[in-house]
Parts: sequence; C-alpha cells; structure tokens
Amino acid sequence: MRVLGIDPGTATLGWGVIDHQGSMTRAIAYGALITSPQSAPEQRLKQLYDGLQAICQTHHPEAAAVEKLYFGQNSRTAMAVGQARGIVLLVLAETALPYVEMSPAEVKQAVTGYGRADKRQVQLMVQRLLGLEQYPKPDDVADALAIAICGAETIRFQRAHGEKLGR
Amino acid sequence: MRVLGIDPGTATLGWGVIDHQGSMTRAIAYGALITSPQSAPEQRLKQLYDGLQAICQTHHPEAAAVEKLYFGQNSRTAMAVGQARGIVLLVLAETALPYVEMSPAEVKQAVTGYGRADKRQVQLMVQRLLGLEQYPKPDDVADALAIAICGAETIRFQRAHGEKLGR
Repeated sequence: MRVLGIDPGTATLGWGVIDHQGSMTRAIAYGALITSPQSAPEQRLKQLYDGLQAICQTHHPEAAAVEKLYFGQNSRTAMAVGQARGIVLLVLAETALPYVEMSPAEVKQAVTGYGRADKRQVQLMVQRLLGLEQYPKPDDVADALAIAICGAETIRFQRAHGEKLGR
Repeated sequence: MRVLGIDPGTATLGWGVIDHQGSMTRAIAYGALITSPQSAPEQRLKQLYDGLQAICQTHHPEAAAVEKLYFGQNSRTAMAVGQARGIVLLVLAETALPYVEMSPAEVKQAVTGYGRADKRQVQLMVQRLLGLEQYPKPDDVADALAIAICGAETIRFQRAHGEKLGR
C-alpha cells in the first residue's frame, strides 16, 4: 500500500510517500514545499495546491495521512494553518484519495513506541524504519514520513477490521 | 467595474457580483454556497472551490473584495474559517483576480456611514443602494454585497491614486 504523509503548513509543507507491505516499509519519495513570505498569500496557497497535485500525479498514492492540528490560544496561527489545510483537503478530494488524520501523539507512539518522544527520537526512528542513510531534513519532512508510517498502520488496521477509510 | 464580494465560511459562503460605474451601483448576481455538515470536510471545501470557480467563469468579475476575519480566542473556529478562506484565495489566484480585504467596520462605514452599524442597517442600505425589491437572504448574501460595494469604492480610490491593487 502506498501512502502519502502530509505535515501541513504555509511556509513549509512536509510530504513523504512510502510503500508499506507486510513488515516492510520503504520511502518512495519525500520533500518539502517551501513558499516565500515575500509572495502574496494567495500565490503561496496556489504553490501548495500545484505542488501537492504534482506529487499525487507523480507517485500515485492509494491513501493519505494528514497531521491533525491543535492550537492553544493562538487563533492567528490557527487561521494561517487552516488555509494550508484547506488546500490539502481540496487536493485529497479532487484526487479522490481517502485519508486518515493522526494526532502528533499517535504518530510518536506508532514510530517510537512512546507518545511523548522528542523530535530527535522521531527522526532517528524514521531513518531506521525506512533504512535511510541520513535523516531527512527539514524536520517537516521527517514528520511527514512519520505521519505516513503511522497512517499506513492505521489504514491496515482499519482494513483488517472492515472499517471504512476516510469519511 | 465589476466586483465580486465574498463573505467566507464553510457552511455558508455568501457572494455577490456588482457593477459599479460612477455613482451607479447595481447587482448582477448574488447567492450563497451552502454545504451540508453531513458531508465530509474535504467534500465541503471542494464544493466551495467548484462553486466559486463557476461564479467567476459565469460573471467575469474584474476584481474581488473579501472580508478580513478576526477571531478572539476561538482557535477552533479560526481553523475552520481559515480552511474556507484558503479555498477562496486559491480561486482568486487561479483566476488572476486582484482583491482587496475589508474589515467588518470598513464595510459598515462604507455602506451605512457608521462603522458600528448593526446587521439590519447594513441589509437595508444594501437593499437601497442596489435598488433591490427585497433584502437578500441569508445574511451572508447581504454581507457579501456590502463587501462588494465597499470593495468597489476602495478599488476606485486606489486606482485614482495610482496604488497597486491586491498584493
């Protein structure tokens, strides 16, 4: 099963495509969509939209996993990330890609076995699980790959138990 | 000048297209895009995307005006509206439509002459300025038309003073 993991953000959107077969997981492609703060907000969103569509068309994922986002009191940040998330969900709808949403704790638990692991532990485990020579940079890429790994396991579990994927 | 006013929202997105020539302003078309809470979030966003694109293709606005949004402490609401706003900005970028953003107070000031006017006053003035027989419903539609009226005046002012529109 090929899964696209996405760590949404306007300035940096991390993404990673993995193949998950039995106990084997390998990275197919990964990267970050970077948009400049000097660009107009609508142009940055269009870059994310075009970039994500190109990723789906190139790598043909069967499912996606997106980080579920939480915000304390910062509604300004929530608004900005909401805009990027809106673009992500639109592309998933347009490519008819079912998806799961994972909380940061679920991702850490799935990748390191510990829901409160730090960033460095997550990066090391992503590197190890995928057999990468170096750990992927920036952090958003490692996060996206971790989200993909966790998402693949969740989807496999849901399928094994006959649950309907996505909404 | 033909201006599309947009009051962004996921459940109800109000829109209104007006023609603004000298002291004459008239409504060309207006309505609301309504999405069901029973639909999946990504499908609701896709409905907004498809609907807004159809509006632009049908009515050929030259510019747009979008309500600027503020949130107090509610980051959950900010996130949801941010998603809808992301879709709006994407469509504006794709149709290369320059836009202005208007605060609620600016819209009220432009339409009623009073920045703290209530909803009812705004509706009545929108109805009067556009010569409509009834005032448009739901509120989001009246708001979108008010945003278009205010946007048209702002754009005319900017053009008269040689300012660059949009970002």
